Amino acid sequence: MNSRPIGVFDSGLGGLTVVNEIKKVLPHESIIYLGDTARVPYGTRSQEVVKKFSLEDAIFLITKKVKCLVIACNTSSALGGAEVRKISPVPVFDAISPTAKKVAALSLRKTGVIGTRGTIGSHAYRDAIKKLDGKNKVTELACPLLVPAIEEGETSGPLVSMLIRKYLTPLKKEKIDSLVLGCTHYPIIKKEIKHFMGSNLKLIDPAEEIAASLAAFLEEKNLLAPKSSKAKRAYFVTDLTERFIGVAEMFLGHKISGAIRKVSL
Amino acid sequence: MNSRPIGVFDSGLGGLTVVNEIKKVLPHESIIYLGDTARVPYGTRSQEVVKKFSLEDAIFLITKKVKCLVIACNTSSALGGAEVRKISPVPVFDAISPTAKKVAALSLRKTGVIGTRGTIGSHAYRDAIKKLDGKNKVTELACPLLVPAIEEGETSGPLVSMLIRKYLTPLKKEKIDSLVLGCTHYPIIKKEIKHFMGSNLKLIDPAEEIAASLAAFLEEKNLLAPKSSKAKRAYFVTDLTERFIGVAEMFLGHKISGAIRKVSL
Repeated sequence: MNSRPIGVFDSGLGGLTVVNEIKKVLPHESIIYLGDTARVPYGTRSQEVVKKFSLEDAIFLITKKVKCLVIACNTSSALGGAEVRKISPVPVFDAISPTAKKVAALSLRKTGVIGTRGTIGSHAYRDAIKKLDGKNKVTELACPLLVPAIEEGETSGPLVSMLIRKYLTPLKKEKIDSLVLGCTHYPIIKKEIKHFMGSNLKLIDPAEEIAASLAAFLEEKNLLAPKSSKAKRAYFVTDLTERFIGVAEMFLGHKISGAIRKVSL
Repeated sequence: MNSRPIGVFDSGLGGLTVVNEIKKVLPHESIIYLGDTARVPYGTRSQEVVKKFSLEDAIFLITKKVKCLVIACNTSSALGGAEVRKISPVPVFDAISPTAKKVAALSLRKTGVIGTRGTIGSHAYRDAIKKLDGKNKVTELACPLLVPAIEEGETSGPLVSMLIRKYLTPLKKEKIDSLVLGCTHYPIIKKEIKHFMGSNLKLIDPAEEIAASLAAFLEEKNLLAPKSSKAKRAYFVTDLTERFIGVAEMFLGHKISGAIRKVSL
Protein backbone atom coordinates (compact mmCIF):
# COMPACT_ATOMS: atom_id res chain seq x y z
CA MET A 1 0.00 0.00 0.00
CA ASN A 2 2.72 2.50 1.00
CA SER A 3 4.41 2.56 -2.38
CA ARG A 4 1.15 3.11 -4.25
CA PRO A 5 0.91 6.53 -5.91
CA ILE A 6 -1.13 9.53 -4.77
CA GLY A 7 -3.83 10.36 -7.34
CA VAL A 8 -4.38 14.04 -8.10
CA PHE A 9 -7.08 15.30 -10.44
CA ASP A 10 -7.98 18.71 -11.77
CA SER A 11 -10.23 20.26 -14.40
CA GLY A 12 -7.11 21.10 -16.39
CA LEU A 13 -3.50 21.99 -15.79
CA GLY A 14 -3.83 24.43 -12.88
CA GLY A 15 -3.72 21.50 -10.44
CA LEU A 16 -0.04 21.13 -11.22
CA THR A 17 0.50 23.93 -8.67
CA VAL A 18 -0.86 21.42 -6.13
CA VAL A 19 1.45 18.68 -7.42
CA ASN A 20 4.31 21.11 -6.84
CA GLU A 21 3.39 21.66 -3.20
CA ILE A 22 2.93 17.92 -2.62
CA LYS A 23 6.38 17.25 -4.08
CA LYS A 24 7.92 19.81 -1.70
CA VAL A 25 6.65 18.14 1.46
CA LEU A 26 6.46 14.55 0.18
CA PRO A 27 9.45 14.13 -2.16
CA HIS A 28 9.41 10.31 -2.00
CA GLU A 29 5.78 9.91 -3.04
CA SER A 30 4.77 8.77 -6.52
CA ILE A 31 2.03 10.87 -8.09
CA ILE A 32 -0.48 10.19 -10.87
CA TYR A 33 -2.03 13.39 -12.22
CA LEU A 34 -5.15 13.63 -14.35
CA GLY A 35 -6.12 16.93 -16.02
CA ASP A 36 -9.49 16.96 -17.79
CA THR A 37 -8.21 19.30 -20.50
CA ALA A 38 -10.90 18.21 -23.00
CA ARG A 39 -13.59 19.72 -20.76
CA VAL A 40 -11.78 22.46 -18.86
CA PRO A 41 -12.90 24.88 -17.37
CA TYR A 42 -15.24 23.55 -14.66
CA GLY A 43 -15.65 26.95 -13.00
CA THR A 44 -18.49 28.17 -15.23
CA ARG A 45 -20.51 24.92 -15.26
CA SER A 46 -23.47 23.71 -13.22
CA GLN A 47 -23.10 21.60 -10.08
CA GLU A 48 -24.66 18.63 -11.86
CA VAL A 49 -22.06 18.68 -14.63
CA VAL A 50 -19.11 19.35 -12.30
CA LYS A 51 -20.21 16.39 -10.13
CA LYS A 52 -20.41 14.10 -13.16
CA PHE A 53 -17.01 15.15 -14.53
CA SER A 54 -15.39 14.93 -11.05
CA LEU A 55 -16.69 11.40 -10.55
CA GLU A 56 -15.30 10.35 -13.93
CA ASP A 57 -11.92 11.86 -13.05
CA ALA A 58 -11.91 10.13 -9.66
CA ILE A 59 -12.85 6.73 -11.13
CA PHE A 60 -9.97 6.94 -13.60
CA LEU A 61 -7.49 7.40 -10.74
CA ILE A 62 -9.14 4.79 -8.50
CA THR A 63 -8.67 2.18 -11.24
CA LYS A 64 -4.97 3.13 -11.22
CA LYS A 65 -4.85 1.84 -7.62
CA VAL A 66 -3.91 5.06 -5.87
CA LYS A 67 -3.57 5.07 -2.07
CA CYS A 68 -5.47 8.34 -1.77
CA LEU A 69 -7.20 10.92 -3.95
CA VAL A 70 -6.50 14.65 -4.08
CA ILE A 71 -9.05 16.99 -5.66
CA ALA A 72 -6.75 19.81 -6.75
CA CYS A 73 -9.49 21.81 -8.49
CA ASN A 74 -11.31 24.19 -6.15
CA THR A 75 -14.52 24.03 -8.21
CA SER A 76 -14.49 20.21 -8.11
CA SER A 77 -13.77 20.34 -4.38
CA ALA A 78 -16.69 22.72 -3.79
CA LEU A 79 -19.27 21.13 -6.09
CA GLY A 80 -18.17 17.49 -6.41
CA GLY A 81 -16.14 16.71 -3.27
CA ALA A 82 -19.02 15.06 -1.36
CA GLU A 83 -19.95 12.83 -4.32
CA VAL A 84 -16.34 11.72 -4.83
CA ARG A 85 -16.09 10.81 -1.12
CA LYS A 86 -19.24 8.69 -1.42
CA ILE A 87 -17.77 6.45 -4.12
CA SER A 88 -14.07 6.47 -3.22
CA PRO A 89 -12.60 3.38 -1.52
CA VAL A 90 -9.53 5.47 -0.54
CA PRO A 91 -9.27 8.70 1.49
CA VAL A 92 -10.13 11.90 -0.38
CA PHE A 93 -8.42 15.26 0.16
CA ASP A 94 -9.99 18.42 -1.21
CA ALA A 95 -9.04 22.09 -1.24
CA ILE A 96 -11.76 23.39 1.08
CA SER A 97 -11.39 21.56 4.43
CA PRO A 98 -7.64 22.04 5.10
CA THR A 99 -7.84 25.67 3.94
CA ALA A 100 -10.76 26.43 6.27
CA LYS A 101 -8.85 24.79 9.15
CA LYS A 102 -5.82 26.95 8.42
CA VAL A 103 -7.93 30.13 8.29
CA ALA A 104 -9.61 29.23 11.58
CA ALA A 105 -6.25 28.48 13.23
CA LEU A 106 -4.97 31.95 12.32
CA SER A 107 -7.90 33.72 14.11
CA LEU A 108 -8.41 36.26 11.32
CA ARG A 109 -11.03 38.97 11.38
CA LYS A 110 -11.85 39.67 7.75
CA THR A 111 -11.07 37.00 5.19
CA GLY A 112 -11.70 37.38 1.46
CA VAL A 113 -12.17 34.36 -0.78
CA ILE A 114 -11.71 34.57 -4.54
CA GLY A 115 -12.54 31.79 -6.99
CA THR A 116 -14.51 30.74 -10.03
CA ARG A 117 -18.25 31.35 -10.32
CA GLY A 118 -18.84 27.71 -9.36
CA THR A 119 -16.68 27.80 -6.23
CA ILE A 120 -18.03 31.14 -5.02
CA GLY A 121 -21.66 30.28 -5.88
CA SER A 122 -21.43 27.14 -3.73
CA HIS A 123 -20.33 29.16 -0.64
CA ALA A 124 -18.28 26.09 0.30
CA TYR A 125 -15.34 28.16 1.60
CA ARG A 126 -17.51 30.61 3.54
CA ASP A 127 -19.55 27.83 5.17
CA ALA A 128 -16.47 25.75 6.06
CA ILE A 129 -14.66 28.75 7.58
CA LYS A 130 -17.71 30.04 9.49
CA LYS A 131 -18.29 26.58 10.97
CA LEU A 132 -14.84 26.67 12.58
CA ASP A 133 -14.64 30.38 13.34
CA GLY A 134 -17.96 32.21 13.51
CA LYS A 135 -16.31 35.57 14.28
CA ASN A 136 -14.39 35.86 11.00
CA LYS A 137 -16.23 38.04 8.47
CA VAL A 138 -15.90 36.15 5.17
CA THR A 139 -16.43 37.96 1.86
CA GLU A 140 -16.55 35.88 -1.31
CA LEU A 141 -15.91 37.12 -4.84
CA ALA A 142 -15.94 35.42 -8.24
CA CYS A 143 -13.14 36.50 -10.61
CA PRO A 144 -14.08 34.64 -13.81
CA LEU A 145 -11.61 36.27 -16.22
CA LEU A 146 -8.49 35.60 -14.16
CA VAL A 147 -8.29 31.94 -15.23
CA PRO A 148 -8.39 32.50 -19.01
CA ALA A 149 -5.99 35.46 -18.67
CA ILE A 150 -3.43 33.41 -16.71
CA GLU A 151 -3.79 30.48 -19.13
CA GLU A 152 -2.93 32.94 -21.92
CA GLY A 153 0.27 33.82 -20.08
CA GLU A 154 -1.05 37.18 -18.85
CA THR A 155 0.65 36.88 -15.47
CA SER A 156 2.00 40.43 -15.25
CA GLY A 157 1.45 43.70 -17.10
CA PRO A 158 -1.49 46.00 -17.76
CA LEU A 159 -4.16 43.40 -18.54
CA VAL A 160 -3.81 41.38 -15.36
CA SER A 161 -3.44 44.63 -13.36
CA MET A 162 -6.72 45.86 -14.82
CA LEU A 163 -8.47 42.59 -13.95
CA ILE A 164 -7.10 42.57 -10.39
CA ARG A 165 -8.21 46.19 -9.87
CA LYS A 166 -11.61 45.43 -11.38
CA TYR A 167 -12.25 42.38 -9.23
CA LEU A 168 -10.43 43.11 -5.96
CA THR A 169 -11.42 46.75 -5.36
CA PRO A 170 -14.44 45.73 -3.19
CA LEU A 171 -12.15 43.53 -1.04
CA LYS A 172 -9.64 46.37 -0.68
CA LYS A 173 -12.44 48.71 0.45
CA GLU A 174 -13.60 46.01 2.85
CA LYS A 175 -10.07 46.14 4.39
CA ILE A 176 -9.70 42.35 4.51
CA ASP A 177 -6.72 41.05 6.49
CA SER A 178 -6.40 37.77 4.57
CA LEU A 179 -7.28 36.33 1.18
CA VAL A 180 -7.89 32.70 0.18
CA LEU A 181 -6.61 32.07 -3.36
CA GLY A 182 -9.50 29.74 -4.12
CA CYS A 183 -8.43 28.61 -7.58
CA THR A 184 -5.30 26.71 -8.61
CA HIS A 185 -4.34 29.48 -11.05
CA TYR A 186 -4.15 32.37 -8.62
CA PRO A 187 -0.82 31.60 -6.91
CA ILE A 188 0.78 32.40 -10.30
CA ILE A 189 -0.23 36.08 -9.85
CA LYS A 190 0.42 36.25 -6.08
CA LYS A 191 2.87 39.12 -6.47
CA GLU A 192 0.45 41.22 -8.55
CA ILE A 193 -2.34 40.62 -6.01
CA LYS A 194 -0.07 41.71 -3.13
CA HIS A 195 1.05 44.73 -5.12
CA PHE A 196 -2.57 45.90 -5.45
CA MET A 197 -3.86 44.82 -2.04
CA GLY A 198 -0.84 45.79 0.07
CA SER A 199 1.97 43.66 1.44
CA ASN A 200 0.34 43.20 4.87
CA LEU A 201 -2.38 41.01 3.41
CA LYS A 202 -2.02 37.37 4.43
CA LEU A 203 -2.42 35.15 1.35
CA ILE A 204 -3.66 31.61 1.92
CA ASP A 205 -2.87 29.11 -0.81
CA PRO A 206 -5.05 25.95 -0.65
CA ALA A 207 -2.31 24.01 -2.50
CA GLU A 208 -0.02 24.36 0.55
CA GLU A 209 -2.81 23.34 2.92
CA ILE A 210 -3.74 20.27 0.85
CA ALA A 211 -0.10 19.17 0.82
CA ALA A 212 0.34 19.71 4.57
CA SER A 213 -2.83 17.82 5.50
CA LEU A 214 -1.95 14.99 3.13
CA ALA A 215 1.54 14.69 4.62
CA ALA A 216 0.16 14.66 8.17
CA PHE A 217 -2.39 12.00 7.26
CA LEU A 218 0.11 9.68 5.51
CA GLU A 219 2.49 9.98 8.43
CA GLU A 220 -0.18 9.34 11.05
CA LYS A 221 -1.53 6.29 9.19
CA ASN A 222 1.94 4.92 8.43
CA LEU A 223 1.24 5.21 4.73
CA LEU A 224 4.34 7.15 3.66
CA ALA A 225 6.34 5.72 0.78
CA PRO A 226 9.64 4.22 1.92
CA LYS A 227 12.47 6.79 1.70
CA SER A 228 14.43 4.35 -0.43
CA SER A 229 11.77 4.25 -3.16
CA LYS A 230 12.13 6.29 -6.32
CA ALA A 231 9.20 8.66 -6.74
CA LYS A 232 7.46 8.25 -10.11
CA ARG A 233 5.33 10.92 -11.72
CA ALA A 234 2.78 10.17 -14.43
CA TYR A 235 0.71 12.85 -16.16
CA PHE A 236 -2.56 12.11 -17.96
CA VAL A 237 -4.77 14.56 -19.84
CA THR A 238 -8.01 14.13 -21.77
CA ASP A 239 -6.83 16.45 -24.56
CA LEU A 240 -3.32 17.31 -25.65
CA THR A 241 -2.17 20.21 -27.81
CA GLU A 242 1.35 21.53 -28.23
CA ARG A 243 0.37 24.62 -26.29
CA PHE A 244 -0.61 22.59 -23.23
CA ILE A 245 2.99 21.56 -22.57
CA GLY A 246 4.00 25.22 -22.15
CA VAL A 247 1.00 25.97 -19.95
CA ALA A 248 1.71 22.84 -17.86
CA GLU A 249 5.30 23.96 -17.32
CA MET A 250 4.13 27.43 -16.27
CA PHE A 251 2.05 25.85 -13.50
CA LEU A 252 4.68 23.27 -12.61
CA GLY A 253 7.42 25.90 -12.55
CA HIS A 254 9.85 23.62 -14.39
CA LYS A 255 10.16 21.30 -17.41
CA ILE A 256 7.96 18.23 -17.37
CA SER A 257 10.04 15.09 -17.00
CA GLY A 258 8.49 12.17 -18.81
CA ALA A 259 5.59 12.03 -21.18
CA ILE A 260 2.11 13.48 -20.86
CA ARG A 261 -0.32 10.80 -22.00
CA LYS A 262 -3.72 11.40 -23.53
CA VAL A 263 -6.63 9.29 -22.25
CA SER A 264 -10.38 9.08 -22.76
CA LEU A 265 -12.58 8.89 -19.68
CA MET B 1 -39.28 17.28 -46.02
CA ASN B 2 -39.92 21.02 -46.44
CA SER B 3 -41.42 21.51 -43.01
CA ARG B 4 -38.59 19.72 -41.24
CA PRO B 5 -36.44 22.00 -39.06
CA ILE B 6 -32.96 23.33 -39.78
CA GLY B 7 -30.44 21.96 -37.27
CA VAL B 8 -27.86 24.41 -35.94
CA PHE B 9 -25.08 23.41 -33.57
CA ASP B 10 -22.40 25.34 -31.76
CA SER B 11 -19.81 24.79 -29.03
CA GLY B 12 -21.94 26.98 -26.77
CA LEU B 13 -24.27 29.93 -27.02
CA GLY B 14 -22.39 32.14 -29.51
CA GLY B 15 -24.08 30.28 -32.38
CA LEU B 16 -27.31 32.06 -31.48
CA THR B 17 -25.93 35.00 -33.51
CA VAL B 18 -26.19 32.63 -36.49
CA VAL B 19 -29.76 31.64 -35.54
CA ASN B 20 -30.55 35.34 -35.56
CA GLU B 21 -29.30 35.82 -39.10
CA ILE B 22 -31.12 32.70 -40.32
CA LYS B 23 -34.38 33.98 -38.79
CA LYS B 24 -33.94 37.30 -40.63
CA VAL B 25 -33.75 35.75 -44.09
CA LEU B 26 -35.80 32.61 -43.44
CA PRO B 27 -38.58 33.67 -41.03
CA HIS B 28 -40.80 30.67 -41.83
CA GLU B 29 -38.21 28.02 -41.06
CA SER B 30 -38.25 25.95 -37.87
CA ILE B 31 -34.89 25.72 -36.13
CA ILE B 32 -33.44 23.24 -33.63
CA TYR B 33 -30.38 24.60 -31.86
CA LEU B 34 -27.83 22.59 -29.89
CA GLY B 35 -25.19 24.35 -27.76
CA ASP B 36 -22.56 22.08 -26.20
CA THR B 37 -22.34 24.24 -23.07
CA ALA B 38 -20.98 21.37 -20.94
CA ARG B 39 -17.80 21.32 -23.04
CA VAL B 40 -17.52 24.87 -24.37
CA PRO B 41 -15.11 26.37 -25.50
CA TYR B 42 -13.86 24.35 -28.50
CA GLY B 43 -11.41 27.06 -29.62
CA THR B 44 -8.55 25.97 -27.37
CA ARG B 45 -8.85 22.21 -27.98
CA SER B 46 -7.08 19.81 -30.36
CA GLN B 47 -8.46 18.89 -33.78
CA GLU B 48 -9.07 15.33 -32.58
CA VAL B 49 -11.28 16.47 -29.70
CA VAL B 50 -13.12 19.14 -31.74
CA LYS B 51 -13.87 16.50 -34.41
CA LYS B 52 -15.24 14.08 -31.81
CA PHE B 53 -17.42 16.72 -30.12
CA SER B 54 -18.66 18.08 -33.48
CA LEU B 55 -19.69 14.59 -34.63
CA GLU B 56 -21.62 14.05 -31.39
CA ASP B 57 -23.38 17.39 -31.84
CA ALA B 58 -24.24 16.58 -35.47
CA ILE B 59 -25.58 13.12 -34.63
CA PHE B 60 -27.90 14.59 -31.99
CA LEU B 61 -29.45 16.89 -34.61
CA ILE B 62 -29.56 14.22 -37.33
CA THR B 63 -31.64 12.01 -35.04
CA LYS B 64 -34.04 14.95 -34.71
CA LYS B 65 -34.72 14.60 -38.46
CA VAL B 66 -33.46 17.99 -39.60
CA LYS B 67 -33.51 18.82 -43.32
CA CYS B 68 -30.02 20.31 -43.18
CA LEU B 69 -27.23 20.95 -40.70
CA VAL B 70 -25.57 24.28 -39.92
CA ILE B 71 -22.23 24.35 -38.11
CA ALA B 72 -22.45 27.75 -36.46
CA CYS B 73 -19.17 27.41 -34.56
CA ASN B 74 -16.16 28.58 -36.59
CA THR B 75 -13.80 26.22 -34.74
CA SER B 76 -16.09 23.24 -35.47
CA SER B 77 -16.37 24.39 -39.09
CA ALA B 78 -12.60 24.62 -39.44
CA LEU B 79 -11.60 21.45 -37.57
CA GLY B 80 -14.65 19.20 -37.78
CA GLY B 81 -16.56 20.29 -40.91
CA ALA B 82 -15.14 17.60 -43.20
CA GLU B 83 -15.89 14.81 -40.70
CA VAL B 84 -19.46 16.00 -40.19
CA ARG B 85 -19.99 16.04 -43.98
CA LYS B 86 -18.75 12.45 -44.20
CA ILE B 87 -21.42 11.12 -41.83
CA SER B 88 -24.31 13.47 -42.52
CA PRO B 89 -27.24 12.19 -44.63
CA VAL B 90 -28.41 15.82 -45.08
CA PRO B 91 -26.59 18.86 -46.54
CA VAL B 92 -24.10 20.57 -44.20
CA PHE B 93 -23.44 24.32 -44.08
CA ASP B 94 -20.38 25.65 -42.31
CA ALA B 95 -18.96 29.10 -41.62
CA ILE B 96 -15.89 28.86 -43.85
CA SER B 97 -17.09 28.21 -47.43
CA PRO B 98 -19.76 30.92 -47.81
CA THR B 99 -17.51 33.45 -46.10
CA ALA B 100 -14.59 32.70 -48.42
CA LYS B 101 -16.94 33.01 -51.40
CA LYS B 102 -18.12 36.40 -50.18
CA VAL B 103 -14.55 37.64 -49.64
CA ALA B 104 -13.55 36.47 -53.14
CA ALA B 105 -16.60 38.13 -54.69
CA LEU B 106 -15.61 41.48 -53.16
CA SER B 107 -12.12 41.43 -54.78
CA LEU B 108 -10.36 42.65 -51.67
CA ARG B 109 -6.62 43.24 -51.41
CA LYS B 110 -5.76 42.71 -47.77
CA THR B 111 -8.12 40.65 -45.65
CA GLY B 112 -7.59 39.98 -41.95
CA VAL B 113 -9.14 36.95 -40.26
CA ILE B 114 -9.58 36.78 -36.48
CA GLY B 115 -10.70 33.71 -34.58
CA THR B 116 -9.91 31.20 -31.85
CA ARG B 117 -6.56 29.42 -31.67
CA GLY B 118 -8.21 26.36 -33.25
CA THR B 119 -9.71 28.22 -36.20
CA ILE B 120 -6.59 30.24 -36.90
CA GLY B 121 -4.23 27.28 -36.41
CA SER B 122 -6.16 25.29 -39.03
CA HIS B 123 -5.67 28.03 -41.69
CA ALA B 124 -9.10 26.99 -43.00
CA TYR B 125 -10.14 30.59 -43.78
CA ARG B 126 -6.84 31.53 -45.41
CA ASP B 127 -6.78 28.40 -47.57
CA ALA B 128 -10.42 28.74 -48.64
CA ILE B 129 -10.02 32.43 -49.54
CA LYS B 130 -6.69 31.94 -51.38
CA LYS B 131 -8.20 29.11 -53.43
CA LEU B 132 -10.83 31.48 -54.81
CA ASP B 133 -8.74 34.66 -54.95
CA GLY B 134 -4.97 34.14 -55.01
CA LYS B 135 -4.27 37.90 -55.10
CA ASN B 136 -5.80 38.73 -51.74
CA LYS B 137 -3.18 38.94 -48.98
CA VAL B 138 -4.76 37.11 -46.03
CA THR B 139 -3.44 37.69 -42.48
CA GLU B 140 -4.75 35.46 -39.72
CA LEU B 141 -4.70 36.24 -36.01
CA ALA B 142 -5.89 34.33 -32.93
CA CYS B 143 -7.61 36.46 -30.27
CA PRO B 144 -8.14 33.91 -27.47
CA LEU B 145 -9.29 36.27 -24.69
CA LEU B 146 -12.08 37.94 -26.68
CA VAL B 147 -14.48 35.00 -26.20
CA PRO B 148 -14.27 34.78 -22.39
CA ALA B 149 -14.41 38.59 -22.12
CA ILE B 150 -17.57 38.81 -24.25
CA GLU B 151 -19.16 35.90 -22.35
CA GLU B 152 -18.54 37.87 -19.16
CA GLY B 153 -20.49 40.79 -20.65
CA GLU B 154 -17.36 42.85 -21.39
CA THR B 155 -18.71 44.17 -24.68
CA SER B 156 -17.68 47.81 -24.24
CA GLY B 157 -15.39 49.74 -21.90
CA PRO B 158 -11.69 49.70 -21.03
CA LEU B 159 -11.14 45.94 -20.84
CA VAL B 160 -12.44 45.07 -24.29
CA SER B 161 -10.70 48.17 -25.71
CA MET B 162 -7.42 46.95 -24.25
CA LEU B 163 -7.91 43.48 -25.74
CA ILE B 164 -8.83 44.87 -29.15
CA ARG B 165 -5.77 47.14 -29.15
CA LYS B 166 -3.55 44.27 -27.97
CA TYR B 167 -4.75 41.84 -30.62
CA LEU B 168 -5.59 44.04 -33.63
CA THR B 169 -2.60 46.41 -33.67
CA PRO B 170 -0.68 44.17 -36.14
CA LEU B 171 -3.69 44.15 -38.50
CA LYS B 172 -4.01 47.93 -38.24
CA LYS B 173 -0.31 48.29 -39.11
CA GLU B 174 -0.84 45.87 -42.01
CA LYS B 175 -3.53 48.31 -43.29
CA ILE B 176 -6.07 45.58 -44.02
CA ASP B 177 -9.13 46.65 -46.04
CA SER B 178 -11.44 43.94 -44.66
CA LEU B 179 -11.79 41.73 -41.60
CA VAL B 180 -13.50 38.36 -41.25
CA LEU B 181 -15.09 38.06 -37.79
CA GLY B 182 -14.20 34.36 -37.58
CA CYS B 183 -15.92 33.56 -34.29
CA THR B 184 -19.62 33.76 -33.42
CA HIS B 185 -18.87 36.11 -30.50
CA TYR B 186 -17.17 38.89 -32.41
CA PRO B 187 -20.22 40.55 -34.04
CA ILE B 188 -21.20 41.58 -30.49
CA ILE B 189 -18.17 43.93 -30.39
CA LYS B 190 -18.39 45.07 -34.04
CA LYS B 191 -18.68 48.73 -33.05
CA GLU B 192 -15.60 48.60 -30.81
CA ILE B 193 -13.58 46.89 -33.54
CA LYS B 194 -14.60 49.56 -36.08
CA HIS B 195 -13.80 52.28 -33.56
CA PHE B 196 -10.22 50.99 -33.24
CA MET B 197 -9.63 49.93 -36.86
CA GLY B 198 -11.35 52.83 -38.62
CA SER B 199 -14.80 53.06 -40.15
CA ASN B 200 -13.60 52.28 -43.70
CA LEU B 201 -12.80 48.69 -42.76
CA LYS B 202 -15.20 46.22 -44.34
CA LEU B 203 -16.36 43.73 -41.70
CA ILE B 204 -17.44 40.31 -42.91
CA ASP B 205 -19.70 38.35 -40.58
CA PRO B 206 -19.84 34.62 -41.36
CA ALA B 207 -23.28 34.40 -39.71
CA GLU B 208 -24.74 36.54 -42.52
CA GLU B 209 -22.98 34.46 -45.18
CA ILE B 210 -24.17 31.16 -43.71
CA ALA B 211 -27.76 32.46 -43.64
CA ALA B 212 -27.58 33.75 -47.23
CA SER B 213 -26.10 30.53 -48.64
CA LEU B 214 -28.62 28.44 -46.71
CA ALA B 215 -31.52 30.52 -48.04
CA ALA B 216 -30.23 30.26 -51.63
CA PHE B 217 -29.84 26.50 -51.30
CA LEU B 218 -33.30 25.88 -49.82
CA GLU B 219 -34.88 28.01 -52.52
CA GLU B 220 -32.95 26.34 -55.34
CA LYS B 221 -33.79 22.84 -54.11
CA ASN B 222 -37.45 23.70 -53.39
CA LEU B 223 -36.91 22.92 -49.73
CA LEU B 224 -38.31 26.10 -48.20
CA ALA B 225 -40.92 25.69 -45.47
CA PRO B 226 -44.39 26.65 -46.68
CA LYS B 227 -45.16 30.31 -45.89
CA SER B 228 -48.31 29.20 -44.09
CA SER B 229 -46.36 27.10 -41.56
CA LYS B 230 -45.63 28.41 -38.10
CA ALA B 231 -41.89 28.49 -37.44
CA LYS B 232 -40.91 26.57 -34.28
CA ARG B 233 -37.70 27.13 -32.38
CA ALA B 234 -36.24 24.58 -29.98
CA TYR B 235 -33.10 25.18 -27.93
CA PHE B 236 -31.03 22.36 -26.45
CA VAL B 237 -27.90 22.66 -24.33
CA THR B 238 -25.64 20.08 -22.66
CA ASP B 239 -25.38 22.15 -19.48
CA LEU B 240 -27.72 24.73 -18.07
CA THR B 241 -27.06 27.35 -15.39
CA GLU B 242 -29.11 30.42 -14.58
CA ARG B 243 -26.39 32.59 -16.04
CA PHE B 244 -26.64 30.89 -19.44
CA ILE B 245 -30.10 32.35 -20.06
CA GLY B 246 -28.72 35.88 -19.82
CA VAL B 247 -25.74 35.06 -22.03
CA ALA B 248 -28.05 33.37 -24.56
CA GLU B 249 -30.24 36.46 -24.70
CA MET B 250 -27.18 38.68 -25.24
CA PHE B 251 -26.31 36.65 -28.35
CA LEU B 252 -29.89 36.32 -29.50
CA GLY B 253 -30.53 40.03 -28.98
CA HIS B 254 -33.94 39.38 -27.42
CA LYS B 255 -35.73 37.24 -24.81
CA ILE B 256 -35.79 33.52 -25.47
CA SER B 257 -39.31 32.36 -26.23
CA GLY B 258 -39.91 28.84 -25.02
CA ALA B 259 -37.79 26.60 -22.86
CA ILE B 260 -34.11 25.73 -23.13
CA ARG B 261 -33.83 21.99 -22.57
CA LYS B 262 -30.81 20.19 -21.14
CA VAL B 263 -29.68 17.02 -22.91
CA SER B 264 -26.82 14.53 -22.64
CA LEU B 265 -25.00 13.58 -25.82
